[in-house]
Amino acid sequence: PGKKVLIVYAHQEPKSFNGSLLKIAVEELTKQGCSVTVSDLYAMHFEPRATRNDIVGHLHNSEEFNYGVETWEAYKRGGLSTDILAEQKKVQEADLLIFQFPLYWFNMPAILKGWMDRVLVQGFAYDLSKAYDGGLLQNKLSLFSFTTGGSKEKYGFRGDIRYLLWPMQHGIMHFCGAKVLEPHICYAPEHVSEEERKEMLTAWSQRLKTLWKEEPIDCSPEWYFK
Amino acid sequence: PGKKVLIVYAHQEPKSFNGSLLKIAVEELTKQGCSVTVSDLYAMHFEPRATRNDIVGHLHNSEEFNYGVETWEAYKRGGLSTDILAEQKKVQEADLLIFQFPLYWFNMPAILKGWMDRVLVQGFAYDLSKAYDGGLLQNKLSLFSFTTGGSKEKYGFRGDIRYLLWPMQHGIMHFCGAKVLEPHICYAPEHVSEEERKEMLTAWSQRLKTLWKEEPIDCSPEWYFK
Repeated sequence: PGKKVLIVYAHQEPKSFNGSLLKIAVEELTKQGCSVTVSDLYAMHFEPRATRNDIVGHLHNSEEFNYGVETWEAYKRGGLSTDILAEQKKVQEADLLIFQFPLYWFNMPAILKGWMDRVLVQGFAYDLSKAYDGGLLQNKLSLFSFTTGGSKEKYGFRGDIRYLLWPMQHGIMHFCGAKVLEPHICYAPEHVSEEERKEMLTAWSQRLKTLWKEEPIDCSPEWYFK
Repeated sequence: PGKKVLIVYAHQEPKSFNGSLLKIAVEELTKQGCSVTVSDLYAMHFEPRATRNDIVGHLHNSEEFNYGVETWEAYKRGGLSTDILAEQKKVQEADLLIFQFPLYWFNMPAILKGWMDRVLVQGFAYDLSKAYDGGLLQNKLSLFSFTTGGSKEKYGFRGDIRYLLWPMQHGIMHFCGAKVLEPHICYAPEHVSEEERKEMLTAWSQRLKTLWKEEPIDCSPEWYFK
């Protein structure tokens, strides 16, 4: 109760299974007394491209555009574009970040990757020697919740679903110092029965009831590749 | 000689190190007699978002928008948007796909992920039971060429750079049936001497001279996680 949650949501269709998972999270967390904010990326027409437009005013080096350097400098002088600042404010205030999306190509959809690329700039989310356990998003929890196209067996066939969590969980959230909760994966909701879909929705709702008691995962390579 | 190469390039600045790597590839491959096409994604203002706009005309199911189903159906009836069709034509004609980009968050920049999400639709790049060795991009080679922000040691510190290649190489290119050549990684070009940068550019040029004789990597989990 009193906790703040930001859900970054990347699906085009409110009636989708991802839309239902979002709705359940908003309802359950609100019921617990949490304050829930949703960044509905498609509805916001969120810009995924990292360009010069992300910097308001003059460039640090207009001769040779370097996105990392420019956004870092712009962050320090308060010169990032308003859409980035708005997202950073939401992140700053949140105790928990939930990313809700359908898996596209073993990864998050481009619109969500663009949110990572543009919002989590140097100075805000990490800094020189402030990464991993020293990252600037310390004291925040994060959770990747996604649906897949293929069945669980398909991912097990040539590897493990955890392999694809490494760049997201370790490379982004752990790098920024956020603690990572177990991912929440709904396998192939489009290919199971209505009954099983309902069970999946109930399972998400149930998990959320005790989410704040969960221990973060051990963020070592062994968790992913043991 | 006579081979066709598509370079999908994702950097904002022609004067960047990525820009130099692109230039070298175009020059060297052209010199070999290859026909080289470049998709310069930022210059094209390439759209990374997967939306209803990617389908021309009526939807298969306008009650509930499902991007995977709609683009599959649209592909079959020739109803994808013209920018997607143009990229698919380039892919179709290519013997080799090179992806040139700076690593953003252990992954490709959103604009390039959007290219994967939107161009490699079902029916075109893979199909029901046509995946991995049976994928529809068989007989094509692919190569991920990228720069990193951190040094090689940094990636080795908490894992292996190969871990982050799994979703890209295995999850996308291998899934589509394309053969995967060894990645080409330039570590931290922004943080090394001018001399070392030149050596890196020369190494890329040298590698390209004998690229067509290279054996693709063994696309098993062992290659990534041994």
